[in-house]
Amino acid sequence: MKNFSKIAILLSLTVIFTTQAVAAKKVRWSLAMTWPKNLKPLSTTPQKLSKLLEQMSGGNFIIKVDDAGKHKAPLGIFNYVKSGQYEMGHSASYYWKGIDTKTALITTTPFGMTMAEQQAWLFYGDGMKYMEKIYAPHGILSFPGGSTGVQMGGWFAKEIKNLDDLQGLKMRIPGIAGEVFAKLGVNVTNIAPGELYTSLDRGTIDALEWVGPAMDIKMGFHKIAPYYYTGWHEPASDMQFMINKKAYEKLPKEYQTMLLTAIKAVSAEMFYEHYHMSSDAWEQMKQQYPNIKVKTFPKEVLQAMKKATDEVMAQYGKDDPLFKEIYENQQSYMKKVREWTKISEYDYIKTSEMVH
Amino acid sequence: MKNFSKIAILLSLTVIFTTQAVAAKKVRWSLAMTWPKNLKPLSTTPQKLSKLLEQMSGGNFIIKVDDAGKHKAPLGIFNYVKSGQYEMGHSASYYWKGIDTKTALITTTPFGMTMAEQQAWLFYGDGMKYMEKIYAPHGILSFPGGSTGVQMGGWFAKEIKNLDDLQGLKMRIPGIAGEVFAKLGVNVTNIAPGELYTSLDRGTIDALEWVGPAMDIKMGFHKIAPYYYTGWHEPASDMQFMINKKAYEKLPKEYQTMLLTAIKAVSAEMFYEHYHMSSDAWEQMKQQYPNIKVKTFPKEVLQAMKKATDEVMAQYGKDDPLFKEIYENQQSYMKKVREWTKISEYDYIKTSEMVH
Repeated sequence: MKNFSKIAILLSLTVIFTTQAVAAKKVRWSLAMTWPKNLKPLSTTPQKLSKLLEQMSGGNFIIKVDDAGKHKAPLGIFNYVKSGQYEMGHSASYYWKGIDTKTALITTTPFGMTMAEQQAWLFYGDGMKYMEKIYAPHGILSFPGGSTGVQMGGWFAKEIKNLDDLQGLKMRIPGIAGEVFAKLGVNVTNIAPGELYTSLDRGTIDALEWVGPAMDIKMGFHKIAPYYYTGWHEPASDMQFMINKKAYEKLPKEYQTMLLTAIKAVSAEMFYEHYHMSSDAWEQMKQQYPNIKVKTFPKEVLQAMKKATDEVMAQYGKDDPLFKEIYENQQSYMKKVREWTKISEYDYIKTSEMVH
Repeated sequence: MKNFSKIAILLSLTVIFTTQAVAAKKVRWSLAMTWPKNLKPLSTTPQKLSKLLEQMSGGNFIIKVDDAGKHKAPLGIFNYVKSGQYEMGHSASYYWKGIDTKTALITTTPFGMTMAEQQAWLFYGDGMKYMEKIYAPHGILSFPGGSTGVQMGGWFAKEIKNLDDLQGLKMRIPGIAGEVFAKLGVNVTNIAPGELYTSLDRGTIDALEWVGPAMDIKMGFHKIAPYYYTGWHEPASDMQFMINKKAYEKLPKEYQTMLLTAIKAVSAEMFYEHYHMSSDAWEQMKQQYPNIKVKTFPKEVLQAMKKATDEVMAQYGKDDPLFKEIYENQQSYMKKVREWTKISEYDYIKTSEMVH
């Protein structure tokens, strides 16, 4: 009987061990996000992810989300995840352009793909294959983390009627779009977000680019700048989930699938939520400031922007053959998919406008 | 020692029972889909869902997917799920218009919302609240199950230059769009999918509506009908996942969240995949049949379609106050969100066309 009881105890321990290893292993991760705590829908996306994983795992797979106020390095997420200090990050790939210019291609490009086109390229074209190539050397897995859709071209104190109006214009606009504007004679500056409103109000700058109505409304730019230009430079900015590869590989298979599934779900949701918020905010802005003028840049300006974009991208391509390969792959995919966009979504809105 | 061994055995059984109840309960469900086995991306969407749930649950939550060839009732999914014969279904809400006209509103409406607009309405407007109201009386939970995006207006043997060209035209087009065409003098007929090609080829019908390039290409219509009209009637047809409510409530909380999360993930994926397939198929069609003419219906025809749509919807609204409420809610949401679409996605494509 003594042996029997020992076997029973061993059996009970084996059961505890086995079921926990398969389905209830305790995992405690941390995620660092670029955003402050309440920057909806950017900050709420990883928070939703964390909640879903907690629920799916019966409280066993916990991801603590640290906002920028906590970890103090909004643009240090890449290194946090690479080093394993955080198992995950939520940010945007183009913030790592200084580490590898190719990372910028994954977020959005001037005159590039829309949300639908880009997701089609990522998941059914060659996008995710290139994503892996870019991030594998850093031991990071990277996934699309929610698209903002088309971002607006920015707020301008004066109307831009031609290329001359850009000469010496002081504008806050970062990234590749900033390089493009610089080529057109714009005096591109960088100013901390907290000082943007005052800088524009006092004329320290003449123009600035932020995101779109959903995010711009809290900044209050619509109260002081009458011209709101439509977008050309970030047609579908994708946020980004990063996972430390070694940490991911240690997860039980069940948690791996839960994680990737939840990433897809919350990323899609972010696009819907941002679309809703943009529409609400745009209505509010117009009601409160009916004189806001929405403008599309003149054709000669757009053509010059396109030419400058081609030059900037060609230079990056010269410096890095894989950059060139990815950009050409995107351009060729876009050429094909845009034909579909034109006869579907685009034609439909045009058609609807005829009768509404 | 005897008692001790009994306790150990009891303990081991308790552990088995407890961990299984929480995290590894065996669940075997069946899902009936409207589609045949290989109708990508419609049929692959519930198949992906099933695979994800199997992986997330460590093989414990299994959903067997039955295609139309198996269960023999492609348009019987609603009753299958309502009765509990199948725990789940994948279909499209507007197929249940005969049971409740309101179900049609959830899929798409003529001159209605695009994919992005509709998902924003569903998840951040009042959409899901109405979805619940419509399906609760049947003991069914219903969720968006993947959007096709804008569907094409159909293949026509002759060009439609004015309203007169519609008089007596024989066309296969089901649903509300069929009612609209009938009001404009079209002889609307219903023909089984397998006979469509021959009917169009032999002139038994003059026109037909199917889906869009991704699905149309296999049917071969582009080989025999030179005019491909752009869409007005199904701007964002959403497929549908249905769950028997009682079955859902019996699931462990973990599986409930897994199920809803996976539904969101695969539904978003379906849109991306269909976008990719549409773009590929459209390129192929054009290469093989360069004379296909893409046409937008003339303004007078579109305006008559809009007027007829308003009449059809007003009649349904008269018969059912909740139909009226939902449709008005959609129209008012669309009015607001379309302003954003116009200055974002729509303006962006227009802008890009100027420089490409």
